[in-house]
Formats: sequence, C-alpha cells, structure tokens
Amino acid sequence: MGVGEMVLQEVPQAALLKLLAGLESPSAGEAVRGPGEEECDGSGPKLGVGMDCCVIPLRHGGLSLVQTTDFFYPLVEDPYMMGRIACANVLSDLYAMGITECDNMLMLLSVSQKMNEKDRERVMPLMIEGFRDAAEEGGTSVTGGQTVVNPWIIVGGVASVVCQPNEFIMPDGAVPGDVLVLTKPLGTQVAVNAHQWLDQPERWNKIKLVISKEEVKEAYQEAMFSMATLNRTAAGLMHKFQAHAATDVTGFGLLGHANNLASQQKSDVAFVIHNLPIIAKMAAVSKACGNLFNLIQGTSAETSGGLLMCLPREQAAKFCSEMKSQRVSSGGQGGAWIIGIVEKGDRRARIIDKPRIIEVPPRGSQSASQDGSPVTSPNI
Amino acid sequence: MGVGEMVLQEVPQAALLKLLAGLESPSAGEAVRGPGEEECDGSGPKLGVGMDCCVIPLRHGGLSLVQTTDFFYPLVEDPYMMGRIACANVLSDLYAMGITECDNMLMLLSVSQKMNEKDRERVMPLMIEGFRDAAEEGGTSVTGGQTVVNPWIIVGGVASVVCQPNEFIMPDGAVPGDVLVLTKPLGTQVAVNAHQWLDQPERWNKIKLVISKEEVKEAYQEAMFSMATLNRTAAGLMHKFQAHAATDVTGFGLLGHANNLASQQKSDVAFVIHNLPIIAKMAAVSKACGNLFNLIQGTSAETSGGLLMCLPREQAAKFCSEMKSQRVSSGGQGGAWIIGIVEKGDRRARIIDKPRIIEVPPRGSQSASQDGSPVTSPNI
Repeated sequence: MGVGEMVLQEVPQAALLKLLAGLESPSAGEAVRGPGEEECDGSGPKLGVGMDCCVIPLRHGGLSLVQTTDFFYPLVEDPYMMGRIACANVLSDLYAMGITECDNMLMLLSVSQKMNEKDRERVMPLMIEGFRDAAEEGGTSVTGGQTVVNPWIIVGGVASVVCQPNEFIMPDGAVPGDVLVLTKPLGTQVAVNAHQWLDQPERWNKIKLVISKEEVKEAYQEAMFSMATLNRTAAGLMHKFQAHAATDVTGFGLLGHANNLASQQKSDVAFVIHNLPIIAKMAAVSKACGNLFNLIQGTSAETSGGLLMCLPREQAAKFCSEMKSQRVSSGGQGGAWIIGIVEKGDRRARIIDKPRIIEVPPRGSQSASQDGSPVTSPNI
Repeated sequence: MGVGEMVLQEVPQAALLKLLAGLESPSAGEAVRGPGEEECDGSGPKLGVGMDCCVIPLRHGGLSLVQTTDFFYPLVEDPYMMGRIACANVLSDLYAMGITECDNMLMLLSVSQKMNEKDRERVMPLMIEGFRDAAEEGGTSVTGGQTVVNPWIIVGGVASVVCQPNEFIMPDGAVPGDVLVLTKPLGTQVAVNAHQWLDQPERWNKIKLVISKEEVKEAYQEAMFSMATLNRTAAGLMHKFQAHAATDVTGFGLLGHANNLASQQKSDVAFVIHNLPIIAKMAAVSKACGNLFNLIQGTSAETSGGLLMCLPREQAAKFCSEMKSQRVSSGGQGGAWIIGIVEKGDRRARIIDKPRIIEVPPRGSQSASQDGSPVTSPNI
C-alpha cells in the first residue's frame, strides 16, 4: 500500500478522450469504441463516451447484458477497506443505471513485485476479503478474475448483469425543471492526500493553519467509509422516485461527470450546480494548498463517489429524506444533497460562482451535532 | 513495448494457488472464489480452480452468463499484433468451452508512465486497433473498458456471453480411450525470448550453435502469428466432433493446464502426453540455454496457446484433418496434432520419458516443405 500520490497521476481526461477519439469510427455498421474511464456503445439511443456501463442487447428475449469494469491503485492504507472500496467502485457503475442486482463479479488484481512473500500473504488476502464482503453486501459474488505481478498493486473488477428493460434507467432523460442530487460528499482525494501529508512536513506546513491532525484523521476515516459505501440504496430509490438520469462521480470529479451526463441528454438541457457537499474542512485544505485539487472548481478526482442524479423536482426532497432514514437505520451510511438544477441549455454543466459549501461532518460526530444536515432544503 | 523478460516474471503457479486457497471457504451457501489465472465457480457439476471461464446460471429461462478476463504485459514489439494477441488470449477461454460467440468485450489497458505523449499516441491506438480487429474477426465488438497509467503497459480484456446450455461444453467429460489433441504448437515463450536475445550477446552466445539469427526471426514471427490466431475454428469443431473436455494452454504451460483439466474430470482418468508439437528449433534453443524454460517438461508458459482437448478416438483424426483444411483455406492459420491419450487414472497428466518432438516449421515455409505435417497419425 502507501502508493503515495498516485491519486494525482491519473491520465488527464483530455488525454484519455484523445486516445479514444481514434476509435469512434464505426465498424461493420456498429459504433465500436475502445477503452476509457467510462465509455460505452449504448443500446437504444446511441450514447457516447462517458456512459458508466455498456448495455448490450442479447439474442435472448428482450434481455440486455449490462457490464462495467474499473481498476486502480490502492489509496488507503487498510487492505481490507481498499478491497471494499474497489468493489463498491465497480458496482457503482451498475447502480448509476438504477440497477440493484449483479449476476457476477470478476476481480482484477496485481501483486506488487516489491512485496516480499510475507507481506503478500498478509495484504492480498485481506484485500480480496474486503472485495468479496462488499460483493456479498451487494447481493452478488466473485467467481473469477486474473492476478499478475506488477510494480504497483492494482485492484479492481468487472460487474455484469443480464436484465430486462425495466431494471435499468438509461441516463438520458433529464428535462428542464429537474433537480440535481448527489449521494456522497466530495473531497475523498483531498482527504486521502492530506492524510499522507501528516508525514511530510513541507506539505503539512501548508495546511496546518486550517486543520488539526485529529481533523485530518477524521476526514480520512470519513472518506474511507464513504468510498466503501455501496450506492445500492440510491440505485433502488431511483426507480421509486423516477430518476431521469444518473452517473457516478469518480476520476473526472463532479463537474467532469456532470458534463458527461449533460452531454448525453436527449433534451436541450444544462446542469447548474449551486451547492457542494464536502467532507468537513476539505474545502479549506484544498484552498490552503494553492488549489492543487480544484475541489471547488469541481474537477478534483473522487474514488467510489456518490451518484449524481436528475430527479423530478417534486421527488427530490422525498428521495433525500428516504436516503437519510436509510442512513440512520444502517448506522450512518448514505446521505443525499440537492446540489443544483436542470435548465434549458446546451448540454453542459457548470458550477455557479461562489457555490454554497456544505460541510459534511465525519459520521462519528454526525448524529450528535448535525443529524438533519444531509437533507438540504432546495434553496435554489 | 520491449518489456524484456517480463514473460519470465509471472507469478509461479504455486504462489497463485496459495493466494487462492484462502478464498475457497463457502459463503452464504455458495462456493466463492477469488481471482487467479483461470478459476471459477462452475454451474452444474462443481468445478474448481483451473477452469477457463465462469458459468453463472441466470434468473432468466435456462440461460447462463459465461465470462472470463485476462490481462498481461506486451511480449512482442508490434503494438498492433500485441492487441490482436491480447484479444485472442481473452476469447480463447470462451473457445475452450466450445463457445463460438461472444456478446461483448471490455478492454483493459494501461499506458506506461515512461512513454512520452508522442509514443503514447503512436503505440496505444495501434494496440487498441489490433484488439478491436481480432474482436471483429471473432464476431464480437469492444464496447467498454478502463485505462490507467502504470509503470508497465498492460493489455487485456473481458469476454462475456449469455448462452443456452447446448452452446457450451463443460470441461469434465473425458473418458478412458479418448485422444488428446492440441491446436497450436508450443514454444511461444522460448521464441519471444530468443528474439530478445539477438541483442544480448551473452545470452545469444549460449544458443547460437543450435540456431541462426534468421531462424530466430522466423520462429518469432511464427509465434506472433500463432498467438494472434483465434481458437474459434477449433471451438466450433468441438461440437461437430463431440469433444468431451477442453482447456486452453497459457501461463502454466501444456502440463500445467493438462493437470488442471485432468483434475476436473468426472471419471477417474489420467492424461498421458507422447508428442510435443513445437515451433521449429525451439526445443533445441530451450535445451541449449540450460532448460531455462522447461519446454520439454511441459511447463514453459505459453501466451494465447492452442486448445488442448479430449476427443473420442474415432473423431480425433477427422478433427485434425478438418482443422488442417481450414488452415490451408485461411492462408496458413490453425493446425492440430494428436499428442496423447486418456487412460484410467488419478486425474493427473504426465508427459512420457522422451516424448516425440514434432518440429512445426514457420508458416512461410510450411506449404512448400511440410504441408501434411500438422496431422500426425495417432502412433500412440
């Protein structure tokens, strides 16, 4: 573990999209695309690079194969939690389509060549166990995969489900008047890095005026539990509250994924984001270190972030309320914030000047001080 | 590219199986397993670690989801061919179950952090194109994936198909009296390494007495084309000639995979291998460098190797003959050799003392000198 600042080394969105650009020439009458952070050739309405899952119509009675893959490098020190996070991150792409079931998972793993046998035997089974436990929590299981040796540890997987049309929600139905809801706070990348900086005096000195060591540790714990939380509850509630479109927030940050989602809509819509729910103090940390992460600008990478969804205005508060009650009953997991609106526009997303920052306290302190906070009244 | 001797750095089979061992505890009444070179929780008869695909019974009318994943590091210098090889290698796991169709592929890719932008833009699209072309040849397409940055280039994918029970052949039906057939020659690892040694005088000096530089280049070309050849024809013929079980030969070598296959059989059988079809001169090279690869011992790793199958004795020669005719009609691709027998035994495989080496000439020279050679009379 301890891969340092790897989280900053992801391929820039522009470079990835450039790589993909060469692949969009149709082949044999079908749109075929190469790999990317999240991209797909959708069935039904043609969807472009940026969709969370592939939806493949099958030869068998109206069924579709929906699948997704994701893998990355460890970013928390606890191997078990890292396994859970990796699994939650893979499943999240299904959940973003309102799919709550998964028929099978494969695990993708690389063992670091720098690990000795003892470390390998201690760390890797924990990571696999975490992955497997999260899969079980998601009602599925891991029945295959691939392991190689690599300079860095890699962990990820594949999630696949065969489902009927009513089981998934194509992410292209947003209409003006909808409300934008986000189901996890932002700031996981900032929290993970701030935690690493506890041991790097030069870095630490830049942020120590705005945060204590204890608060960094709490933010890191909060980020870790948030990343390990499945978006499954939110996926189920998408059907109940008639979500029009959704995506999950990961490597391209809130604004990157909001833009992807906006670009796929059938209607001429634009997304306007007014509120940013952020893990407590992470906005201040991001600012103190010279905006290294662009957290407030919406492009700070998240790992296993929340679902960003477009809900009918009259459903949004009820959705948030039900997410909150599920959060309380499950011991503090989950939440939802109304963060913006859908208006008529050119299929882009933007964050307003000076958005309202919603400080989301660590769950330990949440029940005491701010139990009602995750549901923001739609002051937009 | 040019990842040097990475092919020698694969995780040893024992270490991988050890990693997997901790994962075999049943969970919630189901056998759940972690990742590995090829491992699975089979439907129907319970199959163990070592199976090529996962077979997941679905909620929908008797259908099963069959899927597999594989990824590794480049081992040939031509990015386009490397993409083809990676795709052929992934699909091969479906083909080993007699499945000829694939509903969807995902591509797994990492860009090397050591590549500059220019190299990245030159190399990666070629690799993706090769992968996509091979997928198209397999009647499928690539509609998703994931790309990250890594010290080494990684290329691989996921292949999934939803099929009816008659579309796949569970690899557990071998009976005494069956004949073992292999559909590609062995020696890809030796050929790839010998080709790298052309630029390493110390290594080259060890093998130059048994092979010329020209022959090394020919063997390398042969290995490259062989690895890029889909096992799809063989998969189709498994049904026509009633194959009882099959696997594909990859990282654990012929004997490793033969042992895996033998261990899964319902009947008390053993596999005895008499003949080793090997890319011309590679047996001599392996011997000259001090048996570094254990090629004759059957444990030299192969990449995207042939199918090893158990056929009824009366069908084997016909299968080989039809594979040969397809080879000629498709310009030199494909082949099949009878390599051994299935007898009563303890579910293991072995190679006899002093097996017969079948020197498989490069395809350029094949039509002239040895057109009939791929079909070996069953002198066993």
